[in-house]
Amino acid sequence: MVVNPAPVTGLRASRRNPERTQERILQAAFKEFAAKGFAGARVDGIARSASINKRMLYHYFGNKEGLFREVLRRKMAERQAWGVATPDDPMASLPYWFELACKDPDWIRLLEWEALQFVEKRLIDEEKRRESAGRAVGRIRGRQSRGHLSRDFKAPHILLAMIALTWFPLAFPQLTRLITGESVSDVSFRKGQREFLRKFAGAFRGRVRIQSNHG
Amino acid sequence: MVVNPAPVTGLRASRRNPERTQERILQAAFKEFAAKGFAGARVDGIARSASINKRMLYHYFGNKEGLFREVLRRKMAERQAWGVATPDDPMASLPYWFELACKDPDWIRLLEWEALQFVEKRLIDEEKRRESAGRAVGRIRGRQSRGHLSRDFKAPHILLAMIALTWFPLAFPQLTRLITGESVSDVSFRKGQREFLRKFAGAFRGRVRIQSNHG
Repeated sequence: MVVNPAPVTGLRASRRNPERTQERILQAAFKEFAAKGFAGARVDGIARSASINKRMLYHYFGNKEGLFREVLRRKMAERQAWGVATPDDPMASLPYWFELACKDPDWIRLLEWEALQFVEKRLIDEEKRRESAGRAVGRIRGRQSRGHLSRDFKAPHILLAMIALTWFPLAFPQLTRLITGESVSDVSFRKGQREFLRKFAGAFRGRVRIQSNHG
Repeated sequence: MVVNPAPVTGLRASRRNPERTQERILQAAFKEFAAKGFAGARVDGIARSASINKRMLYHYFGNKEGLFREVLRRKMAERQAWGVATPDDPMASLPYWFELACKDPDWIRLLEWEALQFVEKRLIDEEKRRESAGRAVGRIRGRQSRGHLSRDFKAPHILLAMIALTWFPLAFPQLTRLITGESVSDVSFRKGQREFLRKFAGAFRGRVRIQSNHG
């Protein structure tokens, strides 16, 4: 029987495939920030989960804030792709956003930690994030002008309300359980919530819908 | 000039007016739990803020969990009174709940810590809290049967959605700022959000409203 060689980790592995190493670090960092928040996260723990030498981690990302910024930027890119792929009709987009929230509860947890720890302070990477939020508001305006979303409300309020309705059960799983008697991870809760959102989305719908080729 | 005597604190004061002492402890505990969460809160810190001997605090409330339970029960009683006083028409009740959330952001923060720290575990005082949530769902059902709220949706989903819409800007103040460009504490944001909620509440309204003497 041949004994497998020990997995190549640390400096040597990261020199061999720096992209894959960075990917592994960022995934470990996202998990750690979601579990403990920025203040509670430990670079040591991230390096350990990624099986990487801490020096190498600092080499790639500078420090904990640099790492957090990079995690945010990758998530923003991913979420922007989801935003662009969002169906125009709110009866489809609300259930779609809820599905995404169920698939990515760690993103909500990361922002929840941030809400508790930053309060009124300047956010890490605030400017880029404001730009990203601005693009999301712009997509809502586009749907309003094409008749898919109501023009009775201002676009930022619509966006905030859509996020609230689709994220809240994940952000406060204990309230979901107390109020509905079901866990947010129950298949039956998710089905009921999707159906609720689909019907409720009528509230956001434009009154005149214009056929459009822009999708 | 007469020098004021030092304020009487600790054992002597608490024997003199135990109710006021307990009140002071519970207020300090609520602040500490909202600022640091159950896990992060320190009984030492609470005793110090309440200018009370730690032994006396244990005498009244047993331990940190007993203190948390008592804080929750008082908040539940207070919030139940608000729930009963909630206007029947969602065009009035949504702005009312938003106003209450703005006045009591520490309650939302405390639950946010709990969401992050308890996850799927059993909650402190879960049974009493489930009863309290059940009464809130019952009030929604009453408004549905009296025609004030739509019967197109199940009561627990309506309750969850009403809380989501009215709490979310306070629970995620950084997202509110990124999306709207305004702070959740800005007078103009609050005015805009109240107006949005009043209009948006049409989505929850019953189609047939029955005149009722039950208020």
